[in-house]
Amino acid sequence: MLTMAMRSGGLRGTAVRWLLSQRLRGGGGGHHRFASTLLTAQQKPYTHIQRGNFNQVEGEDLAVFERILTSSGVITDHADVDRYNQDWMGKFRGQSTVVLRPKSTEEVAAVLRHCHQRRLAVSTQGGNTGLVGGSVPLFDEIILSTELMNDIISLDDVSRILTCQAGCVLEQLNTYLEPHDLMMPLDLGAKGSCHIGGNVATNAGGLRFLRYGSLHGTVLGLEAVLADGTVLNTLSGLRKDNTGYDLKQLFIGSEGTLGVVTGVAIEAVQRPAATNVAFLACNSYEQLQHTFQAAKHHLGEILSAFEFLDEGSMDCTTANLGLSSPLQTPAPFYILIETHGSVQEHDFAKLEGFLETVMSDELVVDGTVAQDAGQASALWGIRERITEALQHDGTVYKYDVSLPLPVLYSLVNEMRSRVASVATRCVGYGHVGDGNLHLNITSSEPNEELFGLIEPFVYEFTAKHRGSISAEHGLGVMKPHHIHYSKPAEAIHLMKQIKALMDPHGILNPYKTIV
Amino acid sequence: MLTMAMRSGGLRGTAVRWLLSQRLRGGGGGHHRFASTLLTAQQKPYTHIQRGNFNQVEGEDLAVFERILTSSGVITDHADVDRYNQDWMGKFRGQSTVVLRPKSTEEVAAVLRHCHQRRLAVSTQGGNTGLVGGSVPLFDEIILSTELMNDIISLDDVSRILTCQAGCVLEQLNTYLEPHDLMMPLDLGAKGSCHIGGNVATNAGGLRFLRYGSLHGTVLGLEAVLADGTVLNTLSGLRKDNTGYDLKQLFIGSEGTLGVVTGVAIEAVQRPAATNVAFLACNSYEQLQHTFQAAKHHLGEILSAFEFLDEGSMDCTTANLGLSSPLQTPAPFYILIETHGSVQEHDFAKLEGFLETVMSDELVVDGTVAQDAGQASALWGIRERITEALQHDGTVYKYDVSLPLPVLYSLVNEMRSRVASVATRCVGYGHVGDGNLHLNITSSEPNEELFGLIEPFVYEFTAKHRGSISAEHGLGVMKPHHIHYSKPAEAIHLMKQIKALMDPHGILNPYKTIV
Repeated sequence: MLTMAMRSGGLRGTAVRWLLSQRLRGGGGGHHRFASTLLTAQQKPYTHIQRGNFNQVEGEDLAVFERILTSSGVITDHADVDRYNQDWMGKFRGQSTVVLRPKSTEEVAAVLRHCHQRRLAVSTQGGNTGLVGGSVPLFDEIILSTELMNDIISLDDVSRILTCQAGCVLEQLNTYLEPHDLMMPLDLGAKGSCHIGGNVATNAGGLRFLRYGSLHGTVLGLEAVLADGTVLNTLSGLRKDNTGYDLKQLFIGSEGTLGVVTGVAIEAVQRPAATNVAFLACNSYEQLQHTFQAAKHHLGEILSAFEFLDEGSMDCTTANLGLSSPLQTPAPFYILIETHGSVQEHDFAKLEGFLETVMSDELVVDGTVAQDAGQASALWGIRERITEALQHDGTVYKYDVSLPLPVLYSLVNEMRSRVASVATRCVGYGHVGDGNLHLNITSSEPNEELFGLIEPFVYEFTAKHRGSISAEHGLGVMKPHHIHYSKPAEAIHLMKQIKALMDPHGILNPYKTIV
Repeated sequence: MLTMAMRSGGLRGTAVRWLLSQRLRGGGGGHHRFASTLLTAQQKPYTHIQRGNFNQVEGEDLAVFERILTSSGVITDHADVDRYNQDWMGKFRGQSTVVLRPKSTEEVAAVLRHCHQRRLAVSTQGGNTGLVGGSVPLFDEIILSTELMNDIISLDDVSRILTCQAGCVLEQLNTYLEPHDLMMPLDLGAKGSCHIGGNVATNAGGLRFLRYGSLHGTVLGLEAVLADGTVLNTLSGLRKDNTGYDLKQLFIGSEGTLGVVTGVAIEAVQRPAATNVAFLACNSYEQLQHTFQAAKHHLGEILSAFEFLDEGSMDCTTANLGLSSPLQTPAPFYILIETHGSVQEHDFAKLEGFLETVMSDELVVDGTVAQDAGQASALWGIRERITEALQHDGTVYKYDVSLPLPVLYSLVNEMRSRVASVATRCVGYGHVGDGNLHLNITSSEPNEELFGLIEPFVYEFTAKHRGSISAEHGLGVMKPHHIHYSKPAEAIHLMKQIKALMDPHGILNPYKTIV
């Protein structure tokens, strides 16, 4: 028992050490893609959407694009285009016939200028790791991929401002920053594939939002190309700049519907000299909330993540991926706590104080603290690989909501009762520190009855508690018609006016976000 | 010598203790207003602006306003209106004949609905503590004061989200949060007068921006009334919400030109269990920059402020306010460092490590560490009262720029050479951690020759180094015509389009920000 260990000798003692199995050790990697053949899930609830009044790409258009990009930047081979048409979960598939891969902002501008004039619809794609169908076309929209725009432009390591092209992969930016003792202010499971431009366009939240905050705060400058090809360059990357409206904020979270993000200036953060990861078990959601309060109190400025998963999520990773739980006793709730600090001795003392409190108050019934980076990575692996594990069930109905903490898990409980007789699994996990729940319901194949039990209930529950029906995943093609559950009519009206102002022909990522 | 003290016994020793004079001790308060009779400065470079095509307020309009607000909400007595017409520095004076003081969002909406229909211009005023003439009318704009909108709506002390009306005074919000062990994420010299709505509308930065970040990150929800009286309520105050465009961001820093902020949901932060303040002296700007690097390295997650003032700023506070320098040896640069943390012992160890480094590396030539809250407050008082001290010179030409750190102080040096024969004083101080310099040039009275030496040089210098001509003060009426020094034409064009979309008759704070 951890309680005993703590009482008898503190955390450094071997009694709390838990040796991670080799199987788990191997699983701490980044983002895992699936070949589409693995996937049976095809929800396809979007067949009611009609193609917009856009022109189709013709030979003359391709000739223009080849002049702008050279032929290597234009992909028209059906098999090659196909992998850009398909989202990684296999839920969403477009019918595009052409992928454009610009290398520079000027090329993006020239492409959009032509598309705007010709009324050709465009779907911008970064790492294609989204969860709401925002990154693939629905019909024959041109796919504008940022994958060749992966230059790092500059790093000011005094001001800690990194400036790069939109197609840089998040993990590669971290690798670049490492020798400068810096890291990116955001982290997410898809880090091995996702592009920083896509992160910005979708306002990605992720695992350390609690500590390093929103991209609305950490993105210091943006370069974006508007629908008509106008380049809007506010890349200067100053920490403070109150000269007029902060236009870059409009693009953060607009999911490619207001412009194409081509460059990003972002505030890098100090790489922690000390990192600690603890994995704890609670017997109730009430205890979990109290543990969160205690963590904020004891860990203060070093708390960098407070994540949770329920028993069902843990069961899924053990059953579907063969991972082992790091704790011997099953419990209804598990917590992953991480600290980032500059002096290990201080951080450990704070962590010890925290653990003593939560154990003596019997908030936590079992726990382990990673003894090295490998173990820390393995503990993170359990949390990060839940998404992947769920996919193995077949069809996954995924929801991502913000809710007030006291009722956050009530949604999972209520949903589980509703879908008990039909679903394979109904689980909840997510970012307690941000009030952000990932609710996932699985079945072996798409099931209309199940879908009817889930929606609109999930949205109604969220609206009743004044939550957000999309905390961090965005609206994409999956949820634009549900925006009214979280935003008042006046706000939606203004969003539509801004969309019409900035993209009068509606060519940018049509059918998505604001429709 | 601090160096000796550190070597012989550490910071807790009395050798480094410096007893603050009673005179200084009394000076650690908040914001200090001046009666206009004290002020001789009237720059008046704005006489070229023509009154817009708005109607004048007539008896029937007043009758409408009295129906909406009751008579106590409508001020028309000339002497009473006068103090709202006048900015606190005495630089900007409007000619309004009426002040409206709504108590609720509904009242603001009703007022704006009428003004929109009648083409009556409106200038919204919070605490009237701005520095660029944004908070007073230029002509006869109706003054819409938020001073009666000072209700705290709710505090969720688990999620740490405070929701309040726009007219709450920053310091009062801190007082309210104190028993909950929380505080506001921003702090500024004007805290005793400024309204949170004004802070949001001007995107106030302030003294702890370095630690707690921008309002673009910490403001979680806003309620704003658009020009036509439409209420836009996104006050839900969720940490994460990706449902459509983040409209609230548009109002942050728009200086009342896109809507009237009526409610704010903001992320409160943990009140630090431990606060330390050190005041240091450096012999060169080069040393100051190295000291900043060392502070980031050693103080990491607990660094909450890194402020600087130059010798001229110190001289001004001693000469004009009678304060004493906390250090015996004059030096060209002074630094104020603050830490916020949760365990005093840990923080002190980190601070000691930092001070040992900067002293042994001879980056710092003298210094003191506050021994209690009174001393800390007095040290802060020196930094916070520079603005007030400068006013005593007569006329103050104030500039607020962001610049890359290496050239930040070069602007002061170059300016000082230019104005040496004409100005009383040319000083620099500000927020090193944010690359934000406050450049101030004083003279006994307004001086056209001096003004010609300052502008456009100050803007050209800033533009050459890709800085911002307004880091945190905003554009107000003082700088809208200079925005091109910091923003490209494409961005200014889009700002104008958004202004025209959201305020088609241009009634909100005309002549300011985007013109």
